[in-house]
Amino acid sequence: MAQDEFAIIRQYFSAIGNPGPDIVLGVGDDAAVVEVPAGFQQVVSLDTLIADVHFPADTSPAEVAYKSLAVNVSDLAAMAATPSWFLLSISLPRVDPSWLEQFSAGLKQAAEQFGLALIGGDTCRGALSISLQIAGLVPAGEFVTRGGAKPGDLVLVSGTLGNAALGLAFSQGRIDLPETLRSRCMEALNRPRPRLELAPFLREYATAAIDISDGLRGDLGHILEASHCGACIDRSLLPVDPWIGQQDLYAYALGGGDDYEICCTLPAERRGRVDDWNRQHADCPLTIIGEITESAFTLVADGEIVDLSTAGGFRHFG
Amino acid sequence: MAQDEFAIIRQYFSAIGNPGPDIVLGVGDDAAVVEVPAGFQQVVSLDTLIADVHFPADTSPAEVAYKSLAVNVSDLAAMAATPSWFLLSISLPRVDPSWLEQFSAGLKQAAEQFGLALIGGDTCRGALSISLQIAGLVPAGEFVTRGGAKPGDLVLVSGTLGNAALGLAFSQGRIDLPETLRSRCMEALNRPRPRLELAPFLREYATAAIDISDGLRGDLGHILEASHCGACIDRSLLPVDPWIGQQDLYAYALGGGDDYEICCTLPAERRGRVDDWNRQHADCPLTIIGEITESAFTLVADGEIVDLSTAGGFRHFG
Repeated sequence: MAQDEFAIIRQYFSAIGNPGPDIVLGVGDDAAVVEVPAGFQQVVSLDTLIADVHFPADTSPAEVAYKSLAVNVSDLAAMAATPSWFLLSISLPRVDPSWLEQFSAGLKQAAEQFGLALIGGDTCRGALSISLQIAGLVPAGEFVTRGGAKPGDLVLVSGTLGNAALGLAFSQGRIDLPETLRSRCMEALNRPRPRLELAPFLREYATAAIDISDGLRGDLGHILEASHCGACIDRSLLPVDPWIGQQDLYAYALGGGDDYEICCTLPAERRGRVDDWNRQHADCPLTIIGEITESAFTLVADGEIVDLSTAGGFRHFG
Repeated sequence: MAQDEFAIIRQYFSAIGNPGPDIVLGVGDDAAVVEVPAGFQQVVSLDTLIADVHFPADTSPAEVAYKSLAVNVSDLAAMAATPSWFLLSISLPRVDPSWLEQFSAGLKQAAEQFGLALIGGDTCRGALSISLQIAGLVPAGEFVTRGGAKPGDLVLVSGTLGNAALGLAFSQGRIDLPETLRSRCMEALNRPRPRLELAPFLREYATAAIDISDGLRGDLGHILEASHCGACIDRSLLPVDPWIGQQDLYAYALGGGDDYEICCTLPAERRGRVDDWNRQHADCPLTIIGEITESAFTLVADGEIVDLSTAGGFRHFG
C-alpha cells in the first residue's frame, strides 16, 4: 500500500494516457519538458474541482476523474484545439487505496479517450480537490476565441441543453424525472462528452465559440461581452428534450450549467455548412438557435421578448 | 466591490506581470494561447498550496502570493529553465477585498521579479488553496534532470541550509532563536529566493539538479534514486549558520524543507568552475558538500558514518 506522496504518484499516476512525440520528459522530475511542433500554438487551461462545490463528495472516484478531465478538455474543444497532455494536482483527505485505484482507472480511461497523457503534478493531504492543467495544440492562428462574433452571425449550439442540470436537480431530490429520462440526464451530468470532434468545423467556419459550463445564457453572454454585440435567440429552437418543453422547464436549458456543449457563431452565408455537418454527424448535431445583433440580449418565447442580459448563469460568488 | 468570479478575475488577476512575445492570448477566454520559440523546449510544473498544510491560514496574503509563485519558480530553476508565464487557480472561503488586494499586489510584485505573466486560471469558493501552473523555456535539450549524476561527481548546494526550517520551528514556538537570526530565518521561510541565476551554470556543467523543498536528505535522495547511485556528504561542509553548528541542530539543515536552494552534481574536473562562480556571485554561493558514490547514502559526522538512506524528508502521507 502506498505510504507517501512519491509512492502514490508511482503507483497510481505513472502510466496515464499515451505520451505523444511532443513529450520530452514526463512524470518524476521537478518539472516536465514538452515541445510544440513548428506551425502550431499551444492552448492551455487550469481548472480546480472541489468536493461538495463542483461534485458531491460521495461521487464515484472514476466519475470524479472522468469529469475533471472532461471539463478541462471541453475548454480546449471550445478553442478548436486538440488535447495533448495534462498536469494533475490532487489533494486527498487520506490514503484510500480503493478510492485511488478507481480514480486512477477512471483517469486512465478518460485520458485514452481524449488522447491525453499525464506528465506531472503533485499530491498532498487536504480536503478532496483536483486541479488539472491541460494543454492542446492548434495550427498557428487558427484558435477560436469568444471575441469574433458579428451582427448577422448565426448562433449555434451542439447536442442537447439542460439535461445535466435536470440530472443534478434529480440527484438532489429537487425534481422528479420520467423513468426514460433519468439515465440520460445522469449521464449528461456525470459523463459529459467534450465536443472535440467539432474542432475542424470551428477552425474553418466559427467566428466565436465557448463551451457551455455555466449555462447558455451566461456563456453566450460571455461571447456577446467579448464580441461587443447582442443576440436574439428563439426558445422554440433550443435543442431540449421534449419533456422540458412540456413541463416549461426551459430555465434548465438556459441557466443550467454542466452541459459542456459548444455554443458558437457563424457567418450567415455558412448556413449550408450546418446542414452538411448534421448529415455526417448524427451524434453531434448543431442547432441554429438565433442570431447575433448589434446590441441587447433577448429571448423570443411565446411571441414575447424576454431580456436575458440582467442575470447570469451559475457564478461562484454570486 | 467584486461580486462574482468574473469580476474578481477582472479586478485582481488581469494585469499580473508583463507578457512576453510568446503569449498570443492571455486572461479572459476559455483557455490561453502561447507559442514556444524555435529551438526551445517548454518546462512545466503544477503545485498546490493549501492553507494550514503548506502555510498557516493567517499568513499575510502578499506572502502567500509570493511563496506560491516562488516555490513553483524554484522547480523551473532546478531544471535550468527561464520562467515565462503561469496559470492560477485560487479557491477562497469568501470575497475579502482587502485580502484579495494584498494578494494581487504580492502576486504582481513576485511575477515581475521572476519575469512571469499571469495568462489564465480560475477562481472558486472553498477552503483557501492555490494551484499554480508555471511554464518556462529552455534551449532544446539543455534542461537538467535528477537522473544524470555519476560516481565521482561533486555534490553542491547553493546558499544556506536549514534557516527556513528554523524559522518555521520558531514561528510555531518549538524553538527559540537568537535575536540576530530571527529575521533571517523568517525571511528564508516566507520569502524564499528561487535560484534562477544558476540556470546558465546548471545548463553548462551540472549532471543532475533538484530544488530543496523537502529537505537536503530527501531531495538529494531523489537524485540518487533517479541516477541509480549513492553519495557521501560531509556534515562539516554543510553551509549552515554557525549557530546551527553550535547547537548541534544539523537536523534542520538535513531534514528541514522549504529552503528552495539548489542541490546539483558536477563532474569532479569542473571543480574550478565552482570557484569561478563564487568569485562572481557572492549572493548565490555554491558549496561542495560531498561526492557521488556507487551506492549507499551516508553522512560523515564527527568521524562517524551515518546511514541517510533509511528516512526521507517531509512527506505528506508519511
